Order: sequence, then structure tokens, then C-alpha cells
Amino acid sequence: MAEKIRIALDAMGGDNGVEVVVAAALDYISKDPSVSLILCGNEEAIKTLLPEKIPDRISIVHATQEVAMDDLPSKALRNKKDSSMRVAINQVKEGHADACVSAGNTGALMATARFVLKMIPGIERPAIITQLPGLINNTWVLDLGANVDCTADHLFQFAVMGSELLNATGERRNPKVGLLNIGQEEIKGNEQVKKANERLSASELNYIGYVEGDDIYLGDVDIVVTDGFIGNVALKSSEGVAKMIRQRLKASFKRGLLSKLAGLIAYPVLKSFAKTIDPRRYNGASLLGLKGIVIKSHGGVDALAFEHAIAVAKTEVQSAVTEHIEEKIALHMKNGKAD
Amino acid sequence: MAEKIRIALDAMGGDNGVEVVVAAALDYISKDPSVSLILCGNEEAIKTLLPEKIPDRISIVHATQEVAMDDLPSKALRNKKDSSMRVAINQVKEGHADACVSAGNTGALMATARFVLKMIPGIERPAIITQLPGLINNTWVLDLGANVDCTADHLFQFAVMGSELLNATGERRNPKVGLLNIGQEEIKGNEQVKKANERLSASELNYIGYVEGDDIYLGDVDIVVTDGFIGNVALKSSEGVAKMIRQRLKASFKRGLLSKLAGLIAYPVLKSFAKTIDPRRYNGASLLGLKGIVIKSHGGVDALAFEHAIAVAKTEVQSAVTEHIEEKIALHMKNGKAD
Repeated sequence: MAEKIRIALDAMGGDNGVEVVVAAALDYISKDPSVSLILCGNEEAIKTLLPEKIPDRISIVHATQEVAMDDLPSKALRNKKDSSMRVAINQVKEGHADACVSAGNTGALMATARFVLKMIPGIERPAIITQLPGLINNTWVLDLGANVDCTADHLFQFAVMGSELLNATGERRNPKVGLLNIGQEEIKGNEQVKKANERLSASELNYIGYVEGDDIYLGDVDIVVTDGFIGNVALKSSEGVAKMIRQRLKASFKRGLLSKLAGLIAYPVLKSFAKTIDPRRYNGASLLGLKGIVIKSHGGVDALAFEHAIAVAKTEVQSAVTEHIEEKIALHMKNGKAD
Repeated sequence: MAEKIRIALDAMGGDNGVEVVVAAALDYISKDPSVSLILCGNEEAIKTLLPEKIPDRISIVHATQEVAMDDLPSKALRNKKDSSMRVAINQVKEGHADACVSAGNTGALMATARFVLKMIPGIERPAIITQLPGLINNTWVLDLGANVDCTADHLFQFAVMGSELLNATGERRNPKVGLLNIGQEEIKGNEQVKKANERLSASELNYIGYVEGDDIYLGDVDIVVTDGFIGNVALKSSEGVAKMIRQRLKASFKRGLLSKLAGLIAYPVLKSFAKTIDPRRYNGASLLGLKGIVIKSHGGVDALAFEHAIAVAKTEVQSAVTEHIEEKIALHMKNGKAD
């Protein structure tokens, strides 16, 4: 029997909590024999959701605390040392798991993972990256909210981490990296962006230059690099507009009998269309830069979406993403900052 | 006969140039008897697009130069003193027009308008504002790209200008103002945003606190204030995702005979849906903070969208937006910065 990929799940995290995580775990292992899952959280609560005979590839590690969605990261770090989130991260630290997944509070997850796992030498800040759908191809964007103010060095490190992620997972060979900017200004961008542009231009990365917000969805670019404030706003605005469009489309097909009839006939087409932009298919953001694989699931998702986050964790373990980033950053450090 | 509202049009600006502007002008005056239009640009080119007997409410002011879409603002300002754009702005300066509209290069328009018309005392930076569709109601966002780095004072001035715009035009009474931020960080936002939050909280504006990117489209907020880099990325990302969705929806209804048939039946519903998110209906961004009304049309639009920008100009003239902002800012200056 081949060795399993072991993934620890924060069973209590997220808006929908333990029900969703346990349902996702059961469904996931029934479909993927290569993975075993460690459910971290309230043992009793977890057990009532599991079949009497617990499946072979599921184990439980008890945790007495939970991080609330509105807990301050510093408070979670200080006062919740036995939270389901921290216990899941500990599994990775102690070598019992190859990766962990949490749908909990992003700030707390970031702070705890950083404290427990530590940063890869040469990376100053962790970054959140996720895949977004595009017209030409999918695009990965980082940072999505881990860092409010970023220096040119941080942006450069994000570009290296993003490139290595895609190289390692085989999603792209030598991915095209773009730096998010705006088109209007005389000499584009702010100081950090201009300096990062210089460093990226001089690097051996496949840097294609400045891109704008619409290029995330329409452009021929694989990785879009920006600071966490801007990345977060871009992501949230996109989610907002997509949700508004979905709801308006639905409403249009409910206005009057004829529209309803048309909707009924168009249903299969609308459904297949909805699938292509289903945010659940893009669930699972990676916290890059840590000495270990940590995946953040969206907080309010269902089991299917959570399973997608587990799949992201598995892919990163299989492709040894952490080791690839470590090697690449070590190389950049050796070559000095002028690479 | 009541006095007409006089609007100067940069007839040569935009990707589609003089054809679109002249077509829009002719159609617009045929529908709205209260407006007269001054077409600024190459007289010969304009005349060949007009009927032999030029309509009463259209006049031409010749300009020998054009600002290219990729001209640097400083170059346009220095070397193109007889551009159609500058001539249109001059019409406002000299009192021949009540407002002007251009689909040209945003940076050049901003720089030229600022140079020719000057700023309202107390406003340090102009800001670009536009209306965006929302699920609950439409939302106005500023700044959309005029300023890369903004101080807390700038953000505060944007909030005052946006509020006065909506108060004056009657779009909202005492509009709800939100400050764009992200949710993840321990102590949210960067320094400027935190300081602006304090000032706004202490002001008499209807300030509702921090909002996130998705609130632009889903939230109960009328005005979203942010710096030009972030605002521009939010706008462009939204445009990108909306365009991607439209194209994917179209493609879904073209995949195979059954889908095409379903599309035919659903056509009226899809068309009425498309109308509700049609970006042309939101064309016409205002450059606020100047001593005069300047409206920026999107560069690549058709005549219908350009007409919408003319309508925005008309509304702002009718509601004396510039005077309202002048008064309000003078009041804030009198009350000191601690208001």
C-alpha cells in the first residue's frame, strides 16, 4: 500500500463549522484513496457526524477551543493555544500531517501559521494566492490580503513564490508574471511598483510587465502580483460583481410566465454556464512563504467547495511546493538582490 | 425660449473619434431640446459628418490638433495647445460652454482641465467619480485613477465632493459614505485609511464606516471612497469579470443546436438582463474638484454611450454641482480640519 498524503483539517473553522468539514471529509476520502484526513476539533461533535465505524483514513485529534471568525489574530495566538486551527497547524509542524486546511478566520490562520511553522528563509512576508477564472486561461493572484503595505522586495518575493507554485504543480511552465498597475498616470504607479518593475525586469522570471485589473480575467497572464490591500479589493469587487450578475440573471428569468418558461428551456445551458464561473471550483487559497502547506478555504462554503480546498492541499504536497520555493529563494539570495 | 445648456464636446477624442462624437451629438439634440452642443475639432472632418444644413443647436469650433490616446499628459499640455480637447475645455473657461465632455486620454484630460480651469480652493486633488450598478442601488466610487497616492486629507475631500455631487443632483439625500478597506488585518487598513476614518467619523457627513470591495455591488452604500490606484483596480477588475461572464454566457448559448434554440427562446429575457448591466448606461465619469464641469467618456464607446456622458454633463450643470462643492468645502475649511 502506497503511503497516504496526510491532511489535517480544522474541523471547527468557518461559518458553517463542523458539519460542513466532516461531510466534506467523508465525501472526499470516498473519492480519493490516496489521502488520509486528520479531523482536528471537538471530538464529541465530530464523532456524532461520523458513522459508528469511523473510516480507516479518518482520524480525530481533539481540541478544546475554537477560533471565532471575529477573534483578533493576536488574541487567537495568545489565548487559544488549543484551538482546532492551531492543533491542525501543529499536525504539520510535528510531522503528523503533510498539509492543513482551515475555513477559519484568515488573520488568525495567518498569524498562527506564521508563529508555529515559521517563514522560509529569504521570504519576509507570507502571501495569499488563489486561482481565478479567466477568458483565455485561469490566473493566479497574490497577495490577496495578508499584507497591507508592501515594499518592492516583498512584491518581488511574491512573484518568485507564485512562479514556483505554478512551476511545481505543473499548472504552467515558466508562467507569465504581470505586475498590477493602473494606466492613467504620467509615470505609472507608485514608488514600490516602479521599483518592483525594475527588479522583475532584471530577473530571470518570465516577467511580462505591467497589467491592469481587467487583465486578471481577460489577459494572457498567469500570475498577477500586487499588495494585499489592492489584491483583496480586486478579489472582493470581482466577487461582488459576479454575484450581482448571477442574481440579476436569475431574477430576469423569474419575471413573468414567459420568462419562467424560457428559463426552463434554457436551464441546462444556464446551469453549464454557471458551472464555469462557480466560485466553489476556485475555493482553496494557499498561504505561501511558510515552512509548510496551509490552505485557506472560504469561510461560508459548502462541503463541495471545502473538498476543493483539500484537493489544492493534496496537489501542493504532491508537487513539494514548499521545497521548490525554498530552493528558488535560496538561489535568489545567493545571486544577490540585483538578479 | 429658455436658455440652452451649452456643452462643448471634444469631437476628436476617444478610440472611435469624430464619427462617434458627431453621431452622438446629432442624435442627442434630436431628443433633448434643452441642450446646445459645441463640437470642437477638425472643422472639415466634422462638417462631412453633419447634414448640409447644420442643425441650429450645433456649432463648430475649429481645432488644429488632437491628443493621442498614448500622449503623455505633460506633452499634451505643452505641445498641443490647440487640441480639440483643450479647445473644448477652453470653451468652459471662457464662459462659452457650461460643461465639456471628452472621450480622450484621461491623463491628458485631467492635466489640461486642471491647468486651464484650476482647482476649487480647499480641494488639493481632482478625483474621478462614476456610478456603478448595484444589487440594492447604484453606487458612486471615487477616485478611479486620478491620484496614485492619497493622504487622509485627500480621501476626506473626496468624501465631501462625492456627497455634494449626489446631494446636488438629487440622486440621494444625505448619501451614505463608506471608506474602502479590507477585512483581514488586525488593525484594519493602512495609515491613510485609518486617519481618514477618524476624520470622517468626526464629520457631519453620513459616514457609515469601512466597506469592502463587494459592497460596491452588494452593499447599502451610496459613495465608496478610496485612492485612485485601488479605485482603478476595483473598476477594471469589475469590468473584466463582467466582460468574461457576458462572453461565457454568450458562448454557452452557441454550443450546439439545442443550446442555440434555447438561446433563441430565452433571447428577450437575456436582452433585458444585459440591459441592466450594460456598461454604456454607466458611461460618463465626472472630474470633481475643478472650477468647471468636465466629463470623461470611456474611450472605446459607441454613440449611445457617449450620449449618456452628455446627459451626465447636463445634469451636473442643471444642479450646479461645482458651486455646491465650492460652498461645502469653504464651510469645511472655515470649521477647520477637526470638523
